[in-house]
Amino acid sequence: MTKESGVSLAVIKRLPKYYRYLESINDKGIVRVSSKELSDITGLTASQIRQDLNHYGCFGQQGYGYNVRDLMDELSKIIGVNKKYSMVLIGYGNIGHALYQYSSFKDLGYTFSAVFDKNTKQKTKDGEDIYGIEDLSDYLKKNNIDIGIIATPKEVSQEICDILCKREVKGIWNFSPVDLKTSNGVVLENVHLDESLFTLTYFINSPEDYNY
Amino acid sequence: MTKESGVSLAVIKRLPKYYRYLESINDKGIVRVSSKELSDITGLTASQIRQDLNHYGCFGQQGYGYNVRDLMDELSKIIGVNKKYSMVLIGYGNIGHALYQYSSFKDLGYTFSAVFDKNTKQKTKDGEDIYGIEDLSDYLKKNNIDIGIIATPKEVSQEICDILCKREVKGIWNFSPVDLKTSNGVVLENVHLDESLFTLTYFINSPEDYNY
Repeated sequence: MTKESGVSLAVIKRLPKYYRYLESINDKGIVRVSSKELSDITGLTASQIRQDLNHYGCFGQQGYGYNVRDLMDELSKIIGVNKKYSMVLIGYGNIGHALYQYSSFKDLGYTFSAVFDKNTKQKTKDGEDIYGIEDLSDYLKKNNIDIGIIATPKEVSQEICDILCKREVKGIWNFSPVDLKTSNGVVLENVHLDESLFTLTYFINSPEDYNY
Repeated sequence: MTKESGVSLAVIKRLPKYYRYLESINDKGIVRVSSKELSDITGLTASQIRQDLNHYGCFGQQGYGYNVRDLMDELSKIIGVNKKYSMVLIGYGNIGHALYQYSSFKDLGYTFSAVFDKNTKQKTKDGEDIYGIEDLSDYLKKNNIDIGIIATPKEVSQEICDILCKREVKGIWNFSPVDLKTSNGVVLENVHLDESLFTLTYFINSPEDYNY
């Protein structure tokens, strides 16, 4: 597996999709898949899929296609799902609650090390203590944390982001409706629910623009 | 306001962002904004922003920029946030719970008409009854619903989607980790949390590809 440098964001965003499809195919006991078949499920052209996978040196065999299990393993290494990640969750409101209980993360090797909220009187659903926001910096100093999840009100999220960056987590998963500025090489991924709902609203009102 | 036809998805996806920025500027009491200033906040070039807005006939005045309130109003009409929307929520698990309680939707004019789940013994946080999934089709026949939110396990989400399309809701907001097929011109917007986490994971492992 040799990865090309400078792969485009569009390609990168499709990898999790491929992984998900292969997982569902694998669950059904299917051993091999052609790019034509992958194309039928994904709606992408077979040549597009081949090109995407070729960026990472994943070559199917002519007339045979891809071995599902092997391709899944390669993709899991490329994405990094084959490793374990420790996470902290900041903000234990509605979204924080939902994320904490979303069991599939744990199955995949993503575990919550600690939860932080301004309300420290409550406990998590698993009965764990909730730390105060003021303890975040110190906690990060003493513990090796890969991912910080921000699910706080937007007013404080940049401040939380600054602490996470200063303490050099590797990545931030942001659910607050603001665009955060990271530093120290910390990578950021946003889930902007309001923007997603507005996009849906736009297409409801301008269905002529909807063609994807 | 005259809208061009065939606006690209990239432009459409930026409109909610502009709206959000204008809202935050407006909250601070700022009356006008130049595309240069919008550029500083959004990280997009001033010319890009002008082009995006010009698609919809939103023209700033040379040397004056945009009136914040006017541009917000125009954008709210373009996106459709100036109207009211009735929604049904299918699946009252972790994510469903969080969405139901996400108060900012209600403030924006999106209201939950009914919640459906296989467990009908519970009530919503507002004390409303929860309907069985088997009642969904009939409910949609009798009530005028704009948006269906799918927050069910992936095994049943296509089936739910089929019912929503048959009963001609206008749009579906899907949180289950599958790609649904819609019909009857129903538009679809996905929030794939697992893909988002995998994208973050990819960048943690390949920070050299992270440049956006």
